[in-house]
This record gives sequence, C-alpha cells and structure tokens, in this order.
Amino acid sequence: MEKYKNIKLDRDSDEHLYYQLAEEIDKLIVDGSLNKYDKLPPIRKLAEILNLNNVTVVNAYKILEKWGRVYKKIGSGTYIIPINNSDYLDGEKRELRKESAYDFSKTSPTSDLFPITSFKNAINSVLDTEGGIAFNYQEGKGYYNLRESITTYLKGYNLFVSPDDIQIISGAQQGLDIVSKGILNYGDTIIVESPTYAGAIATFKNRGLKIIDVPILEDGIDMEKFELEVRRHRPKLFYVMPNFQNPTGILYSEEKRKKLIELSHELDFYILEDDYGTELNYLDSDVYSLKSQDEYDKVIYIKSFSKIFMPGLRLGFMISARKLNTKIAIAKHTTDIATSGLIQRAFYYYLKDGDWKSQIENLKKIMHERMEIALNTLRKNLPKECRLIDNFGGVNIWVYLPEKFDSGEFAEFARENNVMIVPGEVFYNSKRITNDFRISITAIETEAVALGIMKLCSLMEEYLMKKNEKKDESLITI
Amino acid sequence: MEKYKNIKLDRDSDEHLYYQLAEEIDKLIVDGSLNKYDKLPPIRKLAEILNLNNVTVVNAYKILEKWGRVYKKIGSGTYIIPINNSDYLDGEKRELRKESAYDFSKTSPTSDLFPITSFKNAINSVLDTEGGIAFNYQEGKGYYNLRESITTYLKGYNLFVSPDDIQIISGAQQGLDIVSKGILNYGDTIIVESPTYAGAIATFKNRGLKIIDVPILEDGIDMEKFELEVRRHRPKLFYVMPNFQNPTGILYSEEKRKKLIELSHELDFYILEDDYGTELNYLDSDVYSLKSQDEYDKVIYIKSFSKIFMPGLRLGFMISARKLNTKIAIAKHTTDIATSGLIQRAFYYYLKDGDWKSQIENLKKIMHERMEIALNTLRKNLPKECRLIDNFGGVNIWVYLPEKFDSGEFAEFARENNVMIVPGEVFYNSKRITNDFRISITAIETEAVALGIMKLCSLMEEYLMKKNEKKDESLITI
Repeated sequence: MEKYKNIKLDRDSDEHLYYQLAEEIDKLIVDGSLNKYDKLPPIRKLAEILNLNNVTVVNAYKILEKWGRVYKKIGSGTYIIPINNSDYLDGEKRELRKESAYDFSKTSPTSDLFPITSFKNAINSVLDTEGGIAFNYQEGKGYYNLRESITTYLKGYNLFVSPDDIQIISGAQQGLDIVSKGILNYGDTIIVESPTYAGAIATFKNRGLKIIDVPILEDGIDMEKFELEVRRHRPKLFYVMPNFQNPTGILYSEEKRKKLIELSHELDFYILEDDYGTELNYLDSDVYSLKSQDEYDKVIYIKSFSKIFMPGLRLGFMISARKLNTKIAIAKHTTDIATSGLIQRAFYYYLKDGDWKSQIENLKKIMHERMEIALNTLRKNLPKECRLIDNFGGVNIWVYLPEKFDSGEFAEFARENNVMIVPGEVFYNSKRITNDFRISITAIETEAVALGIMKLCSLMEEYLMKKNEKKDESLITI
Repeated sequence: MEKYKNIKLDRDSDEHLYYQLAEEIDKLIVDGSLNKYDKLPPIRKLAEILNLNNVTVVNAYKILEKWGRVYKKIGSGTYIIPINNSDYLDGEKRELRKESAYDFSKTSPTSDLFPITSFKNAINSVLDTEGGIAFNYQEGKGYYNLRESITTYLKGYNLFVSPDDIQIISGAQQGLDIVSKGILNYGDTIIVESPTYAGAIATFKNRGLKIIDVPILEDGIDMEKFELEVRRHRPKLFYVMPNFQNPTGILYSEEKRKKLIELSHELDFYILEDDYGTELNYLDSDVYSLKSQDEYDKVIYIKSFSKIFMPGLRLGFMISARKLNTKIAIAKHTTDIATSGLIQRAFYYYLKDGDWKSQIENLKKIMHERMEIALNTLRKNLPKECRLIDNFGGVNIWVYLPEKFDSGEFAEFARENNVMIVPGEVFYNSKRITNDFRISITAIETEAVALGIMKLCSLMEEYLMKKNEKKDESLITI
C-alpha cells in the first residue's frame, strides 16, 4: 500500500483526476513497483488514502482495464495482468488499447502472417514468363504443374496420389458445393457431425438433402449412434473433419478412423473428409488424413489453403474417390468452369520457389503458442461450473457454459463488452438453444490472447452471476 | 499457262519433286505472276506440261493447301486463296501453316488480345499499396470500390444502379449457379431459349429443374409459343440472352423486349438476362440490356468479363432484382464465400487507371472486321442448299445444313480436316440430331478467317456430296 500512498495528483491540471490516477498506476506497473499478479487496492481504501471520491478510483480502474493493464474478477477485485509487454503506454498506444476488442470469432490468420512477399514474387514470375496464358480459360481439373506440386506436398502427409487424382477448387467451400452437386441428389440422406461447420450445413440444406446429426465425443463421432443411424438410413455420405474439428477442435482416435473406413466399405457410403488443420498438429506424434487410409476408394478429400496460406486466394484442392472423378469434373465445370489461372500459376511458383515449409512451420509455432496460452489461461480462470474440451491441434477451443445457459445470449453480452466468440447454435443443423461456444485463436495477436481470455472468463463469471441472481429472484417470486 | 511452263525443277536434288513444285507455285503466287483468284491448272495438264507423274502434281497441290495458299472446291478445281498476307513462306512459316487448324469452336478471345500490361500494372499497384488485405476474406458482395467503378461503367450502357445493387461473382457461370441455388428449387419450372448456352442447361439440370424449350426466331424468342408456355406452366424464370445470343448471334427486336418486360409483370416470372455481348454491337444504333428497361424489378442481370477482358480472370457481376438481394447473397456465400480479393482489387485498379475503353474499342474493331470477313466469305461460298442467320454483333454465326443432315457428324468430319465448329446438338436441352452449327470468330486470327471459312465451305460441299451419293446408292439398292 506504501507505493499507492506516494502517488501525486495535480488537482489544478486540465487532466481529469481519474485519468491522472490511471497514468500513475500504469507507471507503477511498468517500473515493476507493483507485483504482476497483485490485486489493486479496494476502491474505498484507495479513495480514502488519496483523498478522492470513490467514483474517481472506479473510473481510473476502468481506464486501466481498457488499456489492458488490469482485469476484474467478479466478487474478488481487480488484478494486474500477467503479460510480458508491460511497456509504458504512450498516448497513441492507449488509444489503440481503448479501442481494442478481443476477437476470438474468426478462424483465418491475420494478414501479417501471410507470405505476401513470396507470393508477390510468384505472381510477377507468372506475369513475366507466362503472360496471356494465365488469363485464358484453364483446364477444368486445374493447372497441371500445380497439381503435380501438390502431390509432392502431400507426400509429407503420408498421402501418395498422382496429378490426375487432384481437382483444383476455388476454396474448400466450393469443394463442398461441388460434391453436393456432383454426387448428391435432392432428397438424398447424409450424416454430419454435431456440431459441425456452418457453411457445410448451409450447402447441404440448399441442395435439399436429408441431414442426420450424430453427436461427437472427445475422440470423434459417437460410433454406436453413428452405426445405428447408418444402418437405419443408409446415407450416401458422411461429412467429417477428423483432425482438429471445426468447431470443437477434437481429434479422432485411431480406432474410430479404422472403424469409419471399414463401415464405409461394409455399409457402402462415402466419407467426405474436410481437412481443416492436419498441418497444425501440436502433438509429438504424426496425424494423418482418412484419405491416406482409404483402401476401398470411399473417401473424398477436401483441402483448403485458407488456414495455412491466405484465405483470400480462394484456392484449394480435392481428391475424389476414383470412381467419382468424372462426376466431380462435370460439377466443377457447371460451377465456375475453372479456377483463376493466374492464382493457380502463382501458387505453383510459390510452392516451387517459395518458403512454404517455413511458412507452415512458422504458422504452427505461432498458433501452438497461442493455443498454449489460451488453454493455460482458461484452465486458471474458467468459472468452475464451466468446462472445455481438451485440445491438441488446430485453432479452435470448445467451451461449455453450465447446462441450460444460452451461449447465444452470452455471446451477445460478450460482444457488447468487446469480446467476440461464436455461439454453438451456429454449428448445429437443427436450430436450438445451446450452452457451448467456440474460441478461435487465429485473428488475435499472441500478446493479447491471455488478456482476452481473462476478460472472457471474467465476463462469463459476471454473466453467470447475473443469470443466477435472476433465477434466485424468480425462486423468491414463486 | 505460260507461267507454269517456265517452272524449273531439279531432278537431281534431295528435295522431292512435288515439294519443289509447290515451292515454285508459291513463288509465282507471291510475286504476283498468278492472279489471286485464279484456278490452278488441271492435274493432268500440268503433269503433261512439266513431264511429271499426276501423283506429283496432286501432292504439290495438297502441300499448297496445307500452307493455306490454295483451296479445293469439290467438282470444280483448286483455287488460289484471295488473302492479303501472301508473303513468301520460309521453312518455319511452312511448318506452322502445315500444323494450323482453323478453330471456329471457341468463344473467348486469344491471349494476344488481352490487356496484359495494364493488368500487370494493376496487380502490382494492389500488391504495393494494399498488401495483405487483398489476401484476406473479402466482403461477400464484393470489394466496394470495384462495385462503385462498375456502376460508372454501366452508365455508358444506359444502366443506372448503385454499388449496393452489384454482386461480384467469379464469372458468369457462377452467376447461373447462384441464381439456381438462390431462387430456384428442385422441381421448379423455367423456360429457356432453344438453342441456348450449354453451360446454363447443365446447371439447370443439375438443380433438378423442369426445363421448357421455346424456339428462337431471327428477332428473338417465338413470342406466341413463349406466351402459351408461360400461361400453361407458370415458370419461375426465363433465361435469355437478348443481345447477340449464344449460339445463334441473334438480336431481340425492340417489340419483343417490351413484350417480355410486360409479360414478366403480368404473368409473374423473373427474367434471367445473360449479357453475353452488348459491347460488341456492330450496328450504328445503340443496343441496351433488358435490365435497363426493368421497371417491375423482374430482371436478374449477369455480366461476364470473359469475352471483353480475360476469361481466366474468373470475374463478373450480377444485378439481382432488388427483392432477391438477400437470397442471392446467401447463395454466393454457400458457393465460394467470396471472389478472390486480389483479382477484384486488381480489376478495380484496371478500371481506374487502365485503358479499358480503348481495350473494348479495339476488341470491337477486330471482332467486327472478322465478322465482316466471315459473313462475306460465307455468302460467297456457302453451298446453295445451306443457309445462315444474319448477324449484327457478337462473335457467333449460326449455320444450317440442309434439313435432315446431321451437323454432329459433319463437325466430326470437319475436325478430321482441321476445321473446328460446334454442332447444334450441344445447345439443345432435349438431345436430338440437328442440322445446325455454330461458327465463332474469337479464337482465330483475322488473316485466317477467310481461308478457314472457305475451307469450311469446301468441306460442307464435300460432305453434302458424299451423303447425297450414299442416298443415291441406297435409292439404287431399293
């Protein structure tokens, strides 16, 4: 408390007293006078010591919170943020901090992580050496050299295919659309994981498919229910993200993978594998695709480059089951004829000359670090009634509020307080209130992850408290 | 005949006599000794004069034909080609001529007509000034500045809309796909022109739509039949290319345009206008889109940039009927989320700084010239039993063989003889044998148009003669 007593404020200054107080406490934090994990003094006590109104201290603490210096734990007090970059904030930085929101809703990397320079060189190589060819119609299947490069890329992931097996697509979303159009007809039945990627549900619904949901557990689909539904409905296809699923982040166990492959053969359905994040594997052991185990020609594999390179490229590829190749090629043609020749060629040069391996390594390092920080901060700060699914890769964490709480309402409350998450309701085929939500760590700077997660946890506490109070009130009314 | 008598051949040379003879005649053509419209001497006569075997002369004429110096008129003889670039062919040029095929099947400009340099500058402007933003996800509707530029572009075509009315798409084919997904459901009825664009039929069929064909006449759809079908089937939509239709090249009359707009209101259907070629109008008077007359909010307008700029860009836009805007936006999202940010921004810079007006003017001049040559050559050389539809713009000419002849078989015969056309059967919803085919003048050099069309006409004659002989034979057999 001694350090607080020495704070001097200029009562004749134009600067508000609360702003001066915030600045002085900021200085104490930066120069190390205050322990990084300390609690700030209670409002009344500090007001008394410095001869200020309570409101002045409340406002000073609020400003420090906006600057990302402290966070409030409901019912406990205000704590100093344990992060590293505690340099003194000048005016400009303060403004930034004030505005900053914590965005855990986006799943694409921020543009500072894009390999812009390499890609610019690649584009100019195309323009200089190939000229007009890049701007003409392209082979529907895709630029041959690019397809060949991709086969080399895939060998690193235990997937051995020929260029003829590759179909270039304008992003993974188009892959879903093409599979729907190419092999599924109005009224056909498919099974999806529950929860799953919202964009896939939208595409399947638009195609007029009958969609059966099967819940996922921490090691993959609920296999018992899955087999039951397959036997009952004889679906044409199962849509699955086995590696670090979107939205839950779960990883399929080896047993479930094998079982899926066997069932696809025995009960004759296709597996549509959306490879969302095999590259972002934080385990020590390797993780492969279902396609690499596809001994019965039953897996259709879709790969986006959005997560690991640049989403705005609108480039990806798919490997069809061989017997579906022609249907897929026709569906691609009726969808957009071919993917941009310029983008395809530029990406080929990038794979050929560029630093894609270090790009992926670098991205993986960053995302792994963010994931560790996020998980550790969650484990320390998550309200005890809440829980999360453990995570070993990718960019998403799945969190549960207590049962019967509405994560849609909570997401709205968090957004009003500048923290963005995506509520579970978005990821379910049948619309309903759910208590789960997704945290994604791609669009938030590494330095802001701990801060943002703490703020999120504090908002969860506040929200739960409010709702519980209301419940108590309603109990009293009864 | 004097000139032929003076031809000297070296019987001791390593060079074949027939090749020497071809070279000598080529020289006579180039130095102007032979009249450009002359017939070559009959085989036997020249063989006699020069003391050669008939076969040697036959082979020499064949070589001259391959070099594009002469063409054969069945039953009449071999004529010198009346084209301008009659420079002497050196070895390299001869090889090229030998290989050259006459491709009248493609509807996209060759890459020498693309504004590569301007577009390269535009791309580098984007990369230098915008960096990563261009590679991130884009607004689903499209890059605002581009949409704004397009509204300016459209004013030149009498179409006054706001940027909010514009939806950027990855090419016209995607526009068709999005409209199908956004506003048409499995089992819905639509009407199409017959014949029409094959890619549209494929998309509509894939969507499970009921497709009614109505034949087109030289001034647009057969309006009587059209109205009857609309009243009978109450379709949701009519797919139409009013300006220089693909494949027939026809232009809708002002009366039919007005009637269409009125009927869409009265009988409540949408008009899906595919603007294939308004820019390539060779008439003295202006030609506008149906969308510019759309007083009842019934027209959905799709515009490709493939024909006037570069097909490989995969860029276009649509203007929906206003009440369908949300449905269209959702369908775009489920299709590919957004169109490449780099391509959109580069195209914006191109429209802003580039020479797009002169690009279009130049393209129009070239296509107009090719069209004139093609039409004039057809009028002179088309076998008298065949006919063509007159043409006032665009890049396509529609030709009829006599009734009951199979243009699919003829197209195959022409292809074997290095002339490519697209048979009519491709453009009809219900598969059947047809006697019509499409000639497109975009992918063939201006200097080769006359030559190619003459060869095509000569192949038509040969084909008709063969078929008639067979008919005669079968008559004899009976």
